[in-house]
Amino acid sequence: MSKTIAINAGSSSLKWQIFAMPEETIIAKGIVERIGLPESIFTIKYGNGEVYNRVLDILDHDIAVNMLLEQLIALNIIRSFDEIKGAGHRVVAGGETFQDSIIIDQAVLEKIESLAEFAPLHNPAEAKVIRVFERLLPKTTNVAVFDTSFHTTMPEVNYLYSIPTEYYDKYKVRKYGAHGTSHRYVALRAAKMLGKPIEELKLITCHIGNGVSITAIENGKSIDTSMGFTPLAGTTMGTRSGDIDPSLLAYLMEKLEMTDMNEMIDLLNRKSGLLGISQISSDMRDLEENPDPKAQLAVQIFADRIRKYIGSYFATLNGADAIIFTAGIGENDRKMRQRIISGLSWFGCELDPQRNEAQAVETIISTEDSKVKVLLVPTDEELMIARDVEKLTK
Amino acid sequence: MSKTIAINAGSSSLKWQIFAMPEETIIAKGIVERIGLPESIFTIKYGNGEVYNRVLDILDHDIAVNMLLEQLIALNIIRSFDEIKGAGHRVVAGGETFQDSIIIDQAVLEKIESLAEFAPLHNPAEAKVIRVFERLLPKTTNVAVFDTSFHTTMPEVNYLYSIPTEYYDKYKVRKYGAHGTSHRYVALRAAKMLGKPIEELKLITCHIGNGVSITAIENGKSIDTSMGFTPLAGTTMGTRSGDIDPSLLAYLMEKLEMTDMNEMIDLLNRKSGLLGISQISSDMRDLEENPDPKAQLAVQIFADRIRKYIGSYFATLNGADAIIFTAGIGENDRKMRQRIISGLSWFGCELDPQRNEAQAVETIISTEDSKVKVLLVPTDEELMIARDVEKLTK
Repeated sequence: MSKTIAINAGSSSLKWQIFAMPEETIIAKGIVERIGLPESIFTIKYGNGEVYNRVLDILDHDIAVNMLLEQLIALNIIRSFDEIKGAGHRVVAGGETFQDSIIIDQAVLEKIESLAEFAPLHNPAEAKVIRVFERLLPKTTNVAVFDTSFHTTMPEVNYLYSIPTEYYDKYKVRKYGAHGTSHRYVALRAAKMLGKPIEELKLITCHIGNGVSITAIENGKSIDTSMGFTPLAGTTMGTRSGDIDPSLLAYLMEKLEMTDMNEMIDLLNRKSGLLGISQISSDMRDLEENPDPKAQLAVQIFADRIRKYIGSYFATLNGADAIIFTAGIGENDRKMRQRIISGLSWFGCELDPQRNEAQAVETIISTEDSKVKVLLVPTDEELMIARDVEKLTK
Repeated sequence: MSKTIAINAGSSSLKWQIFAMPEETIIAKGIVERIGLPESIFTIKYGNGEVYNRVLDILDHDIAVNMLLEQLIALNIIRSFDEIKGAGHRVVAGGETFQDSIIIDQAVLEKIESLAEFAPLHNPAEAKVIRVFERLLPKTTNVAVFDTSFHTTMPEVNYLYSIPTEYYDKYKVRKYGAHGTSHRYVALRAAKMLGKPIEELKLITCHIGNGVSITAIENGKSIDTSMGFTPLAGTTMGTRSGDIDPSLLAYLMEKLEMTDMNEMIDLLNRKSGLLGISQISSDMRDLEENPDPKAQLAVQIFADRIRKYIGSYFATLNGADAIIFTAGIGENDRKMRQRIISGLSWFGCELDPQRNEAQAVETIISTEDSKVKVLLVPTDEELMIARDVEKLTK
């Protein structure tokens, strides 16, 4: 038995999970929150439901990783660092370079850093954590698992924008998508559940959390996805606008006497979506039962924009065998699933109300007769990362 | 018999058509091109295929209308101005104010002028032409027919963007759509051709010319449409990008060292779309048979983005009875129709290749068995305008 750690580093957080491989059992997991802010929170869950929790100032990712490794020993989760054979690092932007997960060497690491302009909040933090791992665990193999890799199979007809092609040639402006590891994981699980080789299936995977992305999958490959050059595009999200008429930016900036374009993009990223429409919350749980008309409108728009993307991917795939729901809202919110699917009866999608009561378990939630199956598949990006590490270090 | 003139004034052009009403026969029609530029072109078609043509400098719309009225008398098309009972003016932006065509008085005219910021190239020119008509034909009733009116029936769930609602409240930022008169006309014709009341039909109308807009119609009402706050949004067009990730604008402006947002919007309006992708032409006729891979890519992207919108409107409507093709490309380009519909066989859409040879005639081009009918309906915005004038002046 070897141990693999899956790392998901954000700009101010570090989520991790340790697996025994190839058994795929979780040994421990945890999160460091508010890195670089006062009163950072350090949590480890391990053993038989035991929890280690501390609130203290953690200045940077370097200190966070140091503290994590120390505690793994102190809590007897591992006896020596040598036990951690592999570390898989989620990396948000892999550009066109990384079409699959890869063992990290200096060239790879530098490339990850150079892709920072596609994910300014994420790639630098992730590269930093990788460097800390290299220093502290010199015997561990580091693997990068990219959010974008799964979508590198998109054909150019879908990844190109209808702008002068020189901007793609010179600046790599194109659709990259996101949540690739999640879409890949749930598609593979769905094929198992449907008892068919993934190569014979057309799937529409709906990762619906605070961020939302919808993906059209054929032969196990991403054909199209709703997020774009950045994760701002696509459907309505917690705080993100999704698709809007680009002219609107110019008009609004003039009205608001805004001169910095980045300020406008920030507004579309952080103050829009459910929050912007409802003026109440970016969290679906605060809106769904809220009788305020703007809350209800936000919920309805959220569902409708997802349903439209599903419709467009039925067209892209010329039909689909199954729709798959995953992530926070997709896994837990039966009402949202109902809102989305109820408008697709003409397509041959029919939810079974009883089965749709399910939460966060793998199950088919459509009726026996439903022409298009509807599946609930809890996502597990960490496991997917651990599997990629296992595959590459074998 | 009374005569009605339908006027379509652009920033540098004036298209017109005179109908005998209620017979709806065309008495004469013409166009003034390059108004305000050297060597303007003045054309009238009348009688039995007769054509009057002149090239001269026409400084402004005032002179263009003057010249038109003079020639109508000189060519014996009318004997006196009194014969022109009504003039219908196409107006691009009607905002939320004008939900239907309306007889123009001073208040209406001022409102049209005040909506200029939604259509800076069009509304001022149109208002100017209306003022000329009021002066030169004081006995004629002027009617405004808005491109946006037909879409004012969209529910807020479809016309609102997922941005803070205050921008709708304060600045009326929302989806307005375009080509409304065309969508309305072809939907009415389609209902006749299908032999059903329009109230019982779900239709997806595809106005595909240099500009493209797709509309979802239920009960004869526009429910959603692909163009947005401006005609830049939606599918790939001749020179327009259609939908893109708004983040891309900021990224590209930085790369191009562009500081004026309007320059970027201009690039998306005039240098993108088919022209931007192919780097050859904005005209489908120059691309479709062109073996250059970029020409072929442009054609494919053009078709695919339309097909995706059709798919999304199947979802919005939860099914549709018919898809209708109209406008320059929609009416004349069987290969484009084939490209679009061939990817929708799963939806029950099947073209009859023989029937699809048709050009610019009203006809059903799907097979007998096609679950969703596919129709070809030449648009006639001028006739629709004349009908609205007739209705309002009766």
